[in-house]
Amino acid sequence: MTNIKDKNGNDSWVTYRPEIKVVDCTVRDGGLMNSHKFSDELVKAVYQACVAAGVDYMEVGYKASKKIASRADFGDWKFSDEDDIRRIVGENKTSLKLCAMADAERTDYHTDILPKDKSVLDCIRVATYIHQIPTAIDMIKDANDKGYETTVNLMSISVVNETDLQKALEVLVKTPVGSIYLVDSFGALYSEQIRSLTSKFLAAVAGTGKQVGIHTHNNQQLAYANTIEALILGANRLDATIAGLGRGAGNCPMELLIGFLKNPKYDLRPVLGCIEKYFVPLRKEIEWGFTIPYMIAGQLNLHPREALKMRAGKTPDEYVAFYDRMIEEE
Amino acid sequence: MTNIKDKNGNDSWVTYRPEIKVVDCTVRDGGLMNSHKFSDELVKAVYQACVAAGVDYMEVGYKASKKIASRADFGDWKFSDEDDIRRIVGENKTSLKLCAMADAERTDYHTDILPKDKSVLDCIRVATYIHQIPTAIDMIKDANDKGYETTVNLMSISVVNETDLQKALEVLVKTPVGSIYLVDSFGALYSEQIRSLTSKFLAAVAGTGKQVGIHTHNNQQLAYANTIEALILGANRLDATIAGLGRGAGNCPMELLIGFLKNPKYDLRPVLGCIEKYFVPLRKEIEWGFTIPYMIAGQLNLHPREALKMRAGKTPDEYVAFYDRMIEEE
Repeated sequence: MTNIKDKNGNDSWVTYRPEIKVVDCTVRDGGLMNSHKFSDELVKAVYQACVAAGVDYMEVGYKASKKIASRADFGDWKFSDEDDIRRIVGENKTSLKLCAMADAERTDYHTDILPKDKSVLDCIRVATYIHQIPTAIDMIKDANDKGYETTVNLMSISVVNETDLQKALEVLVKTPVGSIYLVDSFGALYSEQIRSLTSKFLAAVAGTGKQVGIHTHNNQQLAYANTIEALILGANRLDATIAGLGRGAGNCPMELLIGFLKNPKYDLRPVLGCIEKYFVPLRKEIEWGFTIPYMIAGQLNLHPREALKMRAGKTPDEYVAFYDRMIEEE
Repeated sequence: MTNIKDKNGNDSWVTYRPEIKVVDCTVRDGGLMNSHKFSDELVKAVYQACVAAGVDYMEVGYKASKKIASRADFGDWKFSDEDDIRRIVGENKTSLKLCAMADAERTDYHTDILPKDKSVLDCIRVATYIHQIPTAIDMIKDANDKGYETTVNLMSISVVNETDLQKALEVLVKTPVGSIYLVDSFGALYSEQIRSLTSKFLAAVAGTGKQVGIHTHNNQQLAYANTIEALILGANRLDATIAGLGRGAGNCPMELLIGFLKNPKYDLRPVLGCIEKYFVPLRKEIEWGFTIPYMIAGQLNLHPREALKMRAGKTPDEYVAFYDRMIEEE
């Protein structure tokens, strides 16, 4: 961190932290709401908005195993094949780096992740539950050996116990991974918990040159608030999505984050243009964002799957019945 | 505060702070979106939900001057006459206390605020801009002399300079006011600013027995996050509204706040029932809640009036044009 405190040791509003990198996850996390079936026009619009807004990374989609997920059921961004990405970005002769996410145990990484010199991707993001960490470590090593930047995204952190987390962090810092991400998959964490967890992650990477990242969900309208809490403490990799598009309640909205960051390289205007032209119409096709069922799931620290089902079903607004069911199931 | 830290000095999750009082502002702040023209059915539903949920105070509306605001233009809750309130609550034989808001310089408080023994109201909330404080002090004294609890709500705090604020707080603590409220009218404040301002307010009331209150707006999706930040620091009066109904981007949603508070007297279920039955239909009649124009106003620390106009106009989604205009006007 350079020059982030003023002479009284307070955060200085005239400076910014150049280490901060913004990662757009719109098409990847948003793909969970439409089986990854975005039009090329929309993916290109997100790509162009990210380039124009000074966003650092764009995550285009998953590298899912074609043995597990069928091409017939899912759109291109479930697989993020090289030709599909290049159809949108060409050789990506921009300052925006490209990533794809590979879920531990659900990807054929040895074959489907090409050597870096054959790919337009820059970074592989390994998503893992705590019990899959041995697999995740092998994936990190594989991607690193192939020449990629890597991140490891520790999912569902709100249900991981502290001893397990501590061990996981100790093991992960010994890998070549570039960034270790705190992922609040359930949108369950409050600011105090974010502060405590971020501190734990930062302590684990101290002195290694690795970065801490934050990926939040908006189940309790805390996605943006929690992102800036982590950022203030020292997390330097910040995930966000345009219009907050993402699974269920969605993610930290890019437009809020860009409006907060002080580095003049970030520009809000292209993001607003993209929302106006593409995301206002998209809201008529698919629903995402804060609603009461997601709130209930977040408050109860549960996976949003029941809330997703409810919002897609015939009684999306029967909140009391849903609450009673969730409380009982707990 | 009793027993809020554990033996290591950390916040203890098994305790709660009995001094915390939740104040429902649904009908009052929400009235700004429909000229205070709520049906009796809705006002009664909010009242009953608050009683059942264990909410401590309900603000029914304004005590606006009938010389300034016409009865023809506004609904009952612009004036909150005694008969209108009693039509909803009878003698209010419940644990829920009732409040009304009186704006400095826009109320005939000497005549329109009755002696407490003639009113079903328990508390008068004086809303004031910083330059109206002499009037506010007279209003506090008047209401206190008549037998009411009082609060003073310092509006638009994000555009008040620190020296003026310090002086205002010094003067206000000398009045008989019960609570002094930090009001983020523009939804412009970030968590760090909330923490700094809340600390200032708490320092000012230290040792006086007065409480600090927090009233937030959701322009940057921070209304709930900022409310719990202030609460964690020691603010004990927490404003919220059902479904977040309130001017523009709305307020801290009651359902999020009730879900967070640990005191078992609070019950989320009646709030969910009220949302399901009354607020889902209400959303088809009036718009409130986070949208991009409110976000832009919040980020620029501006009054939401231009954003309100835009959302009510013919081009509610032309975000780029709105942004360009706001930036230019700054």
